[in-house]
Amino acid sequence: MKSIKAAPLSRSPIGLFDSGVGGLTVLKSLALEFPLESFIYFGDTARLPYGNKSPEIIRKYTEQALDLLSSRGVKASVIACNTASSAFMQPSYNEIPVYNVITPSAELALQISQTKRIGLLATRATVASRAYERAIHQINPEALIFPVACPLFVPLAEEGLAQDPITSLIAYRYISPLLPHNVDTVILGCTHYPLLSEAIQKVVGNSVQLIASGPAVAERLKFDLEGYTRLPASESHRTIEIFCSDLSSHFQDLAQNILAPLKVDLFELV
Amino acid sequence: MKSIKAAPLSRSPIGLFDSGVGGLTVLKSLALEFPLESFIYFGDTARLPYGNKSPEIIRKYTEQALDLLSSRGVKASVIACNTASSAFMQPSYNEIPVYNVITPSAELALQISQTKRIGLLATRATVASRAYERAIHQINPEALIFPVACPLFVPLAEEGLAQDPITSLIAYRYISPLLPHNVDTVILGCTHYPLLSEAIQKVVGNSVQLIASGPAVAERLKFDLEGYTRLPASESHRTIEIFCSDLSSHFQDLAQNILAPLKVDLFELV
Repeated sequence: MKSIKAAPLSRSPIGLFDSGVGGLTVLKSLALEFPLESFIYFGDTARLPYGNKSPEIIRKYTEQALDLLSSRGVKASVIACNTASSAFMQPSYNEIPVYNVITPSAELALQISQTKRIGLLATRATVASRAYERAIHQINPEALIFPVACPLFVPLAEEGLAQDPITSLIAYRYISPLLPHNVDTVILGCTHYPLLSEAIQKVVGNSVQLIASGPAVAERLKFDLEGYTRLPASESHRTIEIFCSDLSSHFQDLAQNILAPLKVDLFELV
Repeated sequence: MKSIKAAPLSRSPIGLFDSGVGGLTVLKSLALEFPLESFIYFGDTARLPYGNKSPEIIRKYTEQALDLLSSRGVKASVIACNTASSAFMQPSYNEIPVYNVITPSAELALQISQTKRIGLLATRATVASRAYERAIHQINPEALIFPVACPLFVPLAEEGLAQDPITSLIAYRYISPLLPHNVDTVILGCTHYPLLSEAIQKVVGNSVQLIASGPAVAERLKFDLEGYTRLPASESHRTIEIFCSDLSSHFQDLAQNILAPLKVDLFELV
């Protein structure tokens, strides 16, 4: 288990990175959980989405993003994208701790699951990487994982169609082959998917527990930021800065919707 | 009207460029129409899709792609992507003629339409650019254009769901607000959309003519490649080379499906 060397309340921000808006669900979880911490988020919107790209190019883009975050003086980086996490599982880079979203979700799923029959919904690239299988089997080789690639979920979430009957229909299409496997826990293996959690929960049923990346990473960070005291957000003078490689008005609208009521500053990287 | 300076049957290839697989529908039209011409296609798959990106970044990527094609000695370049075309309407670049897909589609739509009431289905970026309105009104200021952004069509086409009832449902959702406007012609303003033309035709009805980018550009090139004699494809020693910035197995499968029965060579640019 790695530990962040910097003092928990040091002014150094925590960095996050995603190909686009999906990682903002992780940022939101962390920002609400740690109201005294500052955050820098980088969305590589000029090259999104990563879900159908090859592992080599995803790894290259991830290293570029981690370089960018360390040049901004972060004390730790979170790869807030499952596809990128699956291509980059190292515990540190540039001597700075790096958190992926896969290990914490795998750990939390195994803690919660009674039957150790775990469903996985993810992009095609994440499913093909078998990163969740490896992470889960490292802890419990007996656990059974049932993966499903759901490539239309990202565009549906990006289009703001979370509440739309079309999303329910597509969720049913993807998830119904999973139902006969009697899973009791389903990992939302893409940081966009929590935006569709209502539609997903309806298909899997209320007895199945959904694991989202944000709360899973927050659990892990609470453990590592030892001595961290939760204080009311009103005490905070922290900043939340969001940079992206292409700041379209579509991104701005989505970001505000996802992060409300958090106050954030948006910038384009030139 | 620009003319290609090189002899029509010179060995120099015609270049095409798109963010991904969509432009392959244009490549297919041109390759079938001009069986003696060689083609070089560049798909910028490492950074696709362009549809939700800003005009500035799309223009930058387009110039990079045109640089690449001219370094390969093309005699003309076709921007086989409506989003990129809308951000780059110049007739030449690096002293090489550049064809966009918007002007030829606008011309063909105006030729075919009786009522001059024309529908436009396109990405959010192409609709916002108003490039089709400008191209059509330059020829006929009286024509009425009814644009509809269809952002889910690209992922549906990429997922191979052209024949799926979900695609019909989404097509109906997007297109039904267009029906009261009594258009007689609909421009498929994205090179992916011809892959969904059956579903689209069902919603607009058989009396409405669909205009795809590929045949429209082929019409224009036939005019410019003056003296070009159509010969049977079996006479051909031409090559069709496809390069992309990220050659995933998903891209290869889609490319083979779209281009069959054409024989092509696929490469990754390093």
